[in-house]
Amino acid sequence: MKKFMDKDFLLSTDTAKELFEYCRDMPIFDWHCHLSPKEIYENKQPGDIAELWLSGDHYKWRGMRSCGIEEKYITGDASNYEKFMKWSQVMDWCIGNPLYHWTHLELQRYFDIYTPFSPETADAIWKEANEKIKQGGFRPKELIERSNVVCVCTTDDPADTLEYHRLLSEDKDFKCKVIPAFRPDKALNIDQDSFLPWIKNLENVSGVKIDSYKTLAAVLKDRIDFFEEMGCKATDHALVYVPCVRKNEEQLESIFEKALRGEKLTAEETDGYKTELLRFLAGEYYKKGWAMEIHIGAIRNNNTFMFNKLGADTGYDSVGDSEIAVGLSRFLDSLASEEKLPKTILFTLNPKDNYVLGTMLGNFQNSDAPSKIQFGSAWWFNDNIDGMYTQMKALGNLGMLGKFVGMVTDSRSFLSYPRHEYFRRIMCNLLGDIVENGEYPHDTKVLSRIVKGIAFENAKNYFGI
Amino acid sequence: MKKFMDKDFLLSTDTAKELFEYCRDMPIFDWHCHLSPKEIYENKQPGDIAELWLSGDHYKWRGMRSCGIEEKYITGDASNYEKFMKWSQVMDWCIGNPLYHWTHLELQRYFDIYTPFSPETADAIWKEANEKIKQGGFRPKELIERSNVVCVCTTDDPADTLEYHRLLSEDKDFKCKVIPAFRPDKALNIDQDSFLPWIKNLENVSGVKIDSYKTLAAVLKDRIDFFEEMGCKATDHALVYVPCVRKNEEQLESIFEKALRGEKLTAEETDGYKTELLRFLAGEYYKKGWAMEIHIGAIRNNNTFMFNKLGADTGYDSVGDSEIAVGLSRFLDSLASEEKLPKTILFTLNPKDNYVLGTMLGNFQNSDAPSKIQFGSAWWFNDNIDGMYTQMKALGNLGMLGKFVGMVTDSRSFLSYPRHEYFRRIMCNLLGDIVENGEYPHDTKVLSRIVKGIAFENAKNYFGI
Amino acid sequence: MKKFMDKDFLLSTDTAKELFEYCRDMPIFDWHCHLSPKEIYENKQPGDIAELWLSGDHYKWRGMRSCGIEEKYITGDASNYEKFMKWSQVMDWCIGNPLYHWTHLELQRYFDIYTPFSPETADAIWKEANEKIKQGGFRPKELIERSNVVCVCTTDDPADTLEYHRLLSEDKDFKCKVIPAFRPDKALNIDQDSFLPWIKNLENVSGVKIDSYKTLAAVLKDRIDFFEEMGCKATDHALVYVPCVRKNEEQLESIFEKALRGEKLTAEETDGYKTELLRFLAGEYYKKGWAMEIHIGAIRNNNTFMFNKLGADTGYDSVGDSEIAVGLSRFLDSLASEEKLPKTILFTLNPKDNYVLGTMLGNFQNSDAPSKIQFGSAWWFNDNIDGMYTQMKALGNLGMLGKFVGMVTDSRSFLSYPRHEYFRRIMCNLLGDIVENGEYPHDTKVLSRIVKGIAFENAKNYFGI
Repeated sequence: MKKFMDKDFLLSTDTAKELFEYCRDMPIFDWHCHLSPKEIYENKQPGDIAELWLSGDHYKWRGMRSCGIEEKYITGDASNYEKFMKWSQVMDWCIGNPLYHWTHLELQRYFDIYTPFSPETADAIWKEANEKIKQGGFRPKELIERSNVVCVCTTDDPADTLEYHRLLSEDKDFKCKVIPAFRPDKALNIDQDSFLPWIKNLENVSGVKIDSYKTLAAVLKDRIDFFEEMGCKATDHALVYVPCVRKNEEQLESIFEKALRGEKLTAEETDGYKTELLRFLAGEYYKKGWAMEIHIGAIRNNNTFMFNKLGADTGYDSVGDSEIAVGLSRFLDSLASEEKLPKTILFTLNPKDNYVLGTMLGNFQNSDAPSKIQFGSAWWFNDNIDGMYTQMKALGNLGMLGKFVGMVTDSRSFLSYPRHEYFRRIMCNLLGDIVENGEYPHDTKVLSRIVKGIAFENAKNYFGI
Repeated sequence: MKKFMDKDFLLSTDTAKELFEYCRDMPIFDWHCHLSPKEIYENKQPGDIAELWLSGDHYKWRGMRSCGIEEKYITGDASNYEKFMKWSQVMDWCIGNPLYHWTHLELQRYFDIYTPFSPETADAIWKEANEKIKQGGFRPKELIERSNVVCVCTTDDPADTLEYHRLLSEDKDFKCKVIPAFRPDKALNIDQDSFLPWIKNLENVSGVKIDSYKTLAAVLKDRIDFFEEMGCKATDHALVYVPCVRKNEEQLESIFEKALRGEKLTAEETDGYKTELLRFLAGEYYKKGWAMEIHIGAIRNNNTFMFNKLGADTGYDSVGDSEIAVGLSRFLDSLASEEKLPKTILFTLNPKDNYVLGTMLGNFQNSDAPSKIQFGSAWWFNDNIDGMYTQMKALGNLGMLGKFVGMVTDSRSFLSYPRHEYFRRIMCNLLGDIVENGEYPHDTKVLSRIVKGIAFENAKNYFGI
Repeated sequence: MKKFMDKDFLLSTDTAKELFEYCRDMPIFDWHCHLSPKEIYENKQPGDIAELWLSGDHYKWRGMRSCGIEEKYITGDASNYEKFMKWSQVMDWCIGNPLYHWTHLELQRYFDIYTPFSPETADAIWKEANEKIKQGGFRPKELIERSNVVCVCTTDDPADTLEYHRLLSEDKDFKCKVIPAFRPDKALNIDQDSFLPWIKNLENVSGVKIDSYKTLAAVLKDRIDFFEEMGCKATDHALVYVPCVRKNEEQLESIFEKALRGEKLTAEETDGYKTELLRFLAGEYYKKGWAMEIHIGAIRNNNTFMFNKLGADTGYDSVGDSEIAVGLSRFLDSLASEEKLPKTILFTLNPKDNYVLGTMLGNFQNSDAPSKIQFGSAWWFNDNIDGMYTQMKALGNLGMLGKFVGMVTDSRSFLSYPRHEYFRRIMCNLLGDIVENGEYPHDTKVLSRIVKGIAFENAKNYFGI
């Protein structure tokens, strides 16, 4: 029996251990996350471990709700200590869940605490962890630097002023680069209530009256130029499925005007608008050399009752199951046909789509970049041992695993960097199994290059930081 | 090499063996099956092993047809001995199929026969098994008691009189509780030929003329009260997908009248009726504290030619692949919004949906119960080693495996209780692997609680028996 | 650690090694491939290894594009040596990809070269391999005979004259039987540009003016008779999904006339035509005792830009995700209801459908043949260790693995026969695991029969060669 989460955690063979040595100390390039540049800049001292762990982590909130814990102890007015103790009660039941590992990796790596966290040890851990927090090293910038992160791409609305990115870029003492990523979801979601307020917001930021699709496109182009000045290399788009409904300029103006009048659009109109605006944006990304990330398959805010109480991103999202292959193919083809398909990273939340994405890549690879079209790492609900294994096996079987740009944290927490270690262990174990099973030569030079590539260097080269 | 199906069957590590000791003798709560209360009550002596094995088991029938055996030897007029010998011819080819294990577990546990069953041993096993049947212990009540079953939930139509449940409840010598589960499929299937005869049937049982939707709802409410008196704790619903098409009272009456007139409904009308009637029923279940089971994804009676010969439940059903996420989400949300979502157990027949269900749960968990929304165990075609492993891994990764209500037999056979042992072995092996791999501490107290919970206690507490 | 691709490649237990001995020297029946009968007949001496490896293999082309290699070195005007050296650069990154194994199996089995292929060894391998090619044994007929292939089913259009099949059948020195398979995709694809030219082509071959659906059906019936004379045993159909839209004769004539006029058909019309023509053909196959292969789920020619440059089958196809269960069920049912469902082999390109197909089989099995309805082996993008494992596990759990007709090469390359060895190793390893794990008795007689059956004899009996 292996010891609980010791130095060889998840490394089951000698080759796996050897491979992990090649990448364990590689830096982290966190090219997709939801960290707040404001919080990084302000760099506040946290009050206690509950603040770090439980103030915003909807993964943990879901875990607590699944154990029948009252909302009072999750997002309610219970004290931090009470919430922490309730969270400890969830632990034992989390067998097989990545929360169990994330929690202990965070205790081990940041707090040097190796005791299993449970209702029986929680009080002692509360005291020891809070004592260590007081001693320092737990402010956002400290945590980022302790984690050996060299670059963070935050996720930013086109209407964002990026003022904190500017301030951070002027902080010469902070070694990690913090750059924006362009996420125009609100521009694309013409059918949602957020659209008109967002247009107003963009008007304020740009100083331009946006009364036509053409003007919107022009303003977004300006924002793309601005994001480029601020160092942007990546973009992000959340879509249940990728539509491909073609519309001409006249139709687009008519749809846009209808939306401005506050009228309800048809599904056809919405998809047509999304298709053409995303095609326009993609063309601009292509010119900039940016990567277009597309996150497919989340259905959000499933619980209206709780949405009305707590708002978005509070743990009420889940996995969709739309058909995605044909629309995605036609959309990418429409760009490739005009020779303006940017580097693209396709993520799916539903592992049933792994073979769709893993083979879609191959349709559009060319010499613009090694694995120009990427299969994004196992994301969100798939960010667990099985999910990562499955995604990497699919990529290995269908594409070019050696050129994979690897892990993203996709996190809102400054303590989440051990997920890169988690990923690297799983990746090394998988590659180790392949070698140990006689399926690939035990060639140290080649293997170390692959492992370092997937851990860091492929992403570095792909995004060009 | 492990010995064939010995005491350590499916237990590949020391921890797995240790965990199995904790649950091997736990009682069975069979909260979802298709046993006949009449057969239990009548408690007839079986004639031979072919009667026990082959008279109604469509799993075995499918196996026989897959080997090209003539229907005469399956459901036809061949003798029981001939059918038994034909069944033995299937065995060798069943490598990798749960039928192979079920057959041998039944031979081992009920007949104390440890010889592999094959054409060469079949005649001797025929004799030995029939001799043992004669000696006794193979009547329904005896088999249930030998299997350590403390409670059985049968599956019953709202129009059922439950007379055998009443008779069984009066039998003080029979230690197992037999209670009904409410399964109103025929009430929901307004588009099927069975609807009007079923309405007539319900009229007869209730003594009420059902000439409106409102009346139907009222009568069903009365039947729910009656089922409650009879000890009911659970309900069941078979749906290809869960619809969410909202209708108001007026529309419902108009749809209902159209159906009464024998006119063909549109898909929209059928889905609207199903949505609202199921919403109404769910609200009643919530008041009673009952669990709502939803079995998604079976497409039934695929072979019309054989259906016309043999009727339903004869081995001609298979796995569907509809999109289910959005409809299911909206349906559950519509109940949660009105604070009347009952405890719910979601089953899928298509493992492609495991991540949809495994994450749908989390949208609606609250403090009504630990894991109030459950991911039902690997069911029917998934009731095999891989299926159970996959379902539990998904639940572990996405939800709270420690709170899982565990196995159901879903069976029509009194010999099928070793499937609980099969499940427990697989569950213990999976948890054992997690511990042996250093992913969870080897904490005996905690692990035994988890294992006993999944084997029995979680379901006991969840249903409140 | 196992040695790299040695004699025990992929065989991880003693039982697996034992089982492989039973089938390693069994002949190959290649009942589905895309070899050219013309190339076999002409039996040309290849110029170099690049010609054998890279002149037509779109798997390798995709691999090269995924590494960012310029098209010039893939399908362009670079020299064969340059292309070969570029291909070597892909190798290291192919970890986890079947291309890595296919490449080395081909080097080992045909060239007796056991060095790992990489940029560093490529030049030496180029020389050694080309020297061996010069020495002989690499012409098509020689490669087929060296591979112990006893029968090849090519894939042929109904309008094909089969002249090379005739010529090959007269070659008494060539031991392998080369027979056609009937693939009427162009007859079914009434909505594609290829339809009218194909009709013209069929008119030329048949000498019949095809001006009605009825005439088309009659001509196809004649071609089926002709294919039967030429030894045909199998048919093939590529469908994104299997439609079941019923039309009567009058409607079919009207659809056909509309197509002849060059007008665009509706989806309903296209599906109706496909349904009825395929139903007609299936009835004819049933009379002949032919097997109907259906390959579901490929979406083809996704990259229009490259299609316009390179045409079809150049590496721009991928996996679809349509709903397939209901249509397929109704289609097969419509044939079974009329007692004219032929032997049928169902393949899916998307592993999400494994449980749909694995259970669909059981709906239509009968005593016409052992496992009359087959679940086709892991195909194309699934033709890898995981894909084959997953397909066989699904078939084992849901159907009758022992009656499986096994592997197909589905290849255009004369070097691809080691894929049968690859399959046999994986199959033996899977069965070996089942036995070693105590899930099936270690019964040599039974196991060797199963292994030989899946490797060769089941297919031989099923197709009746």
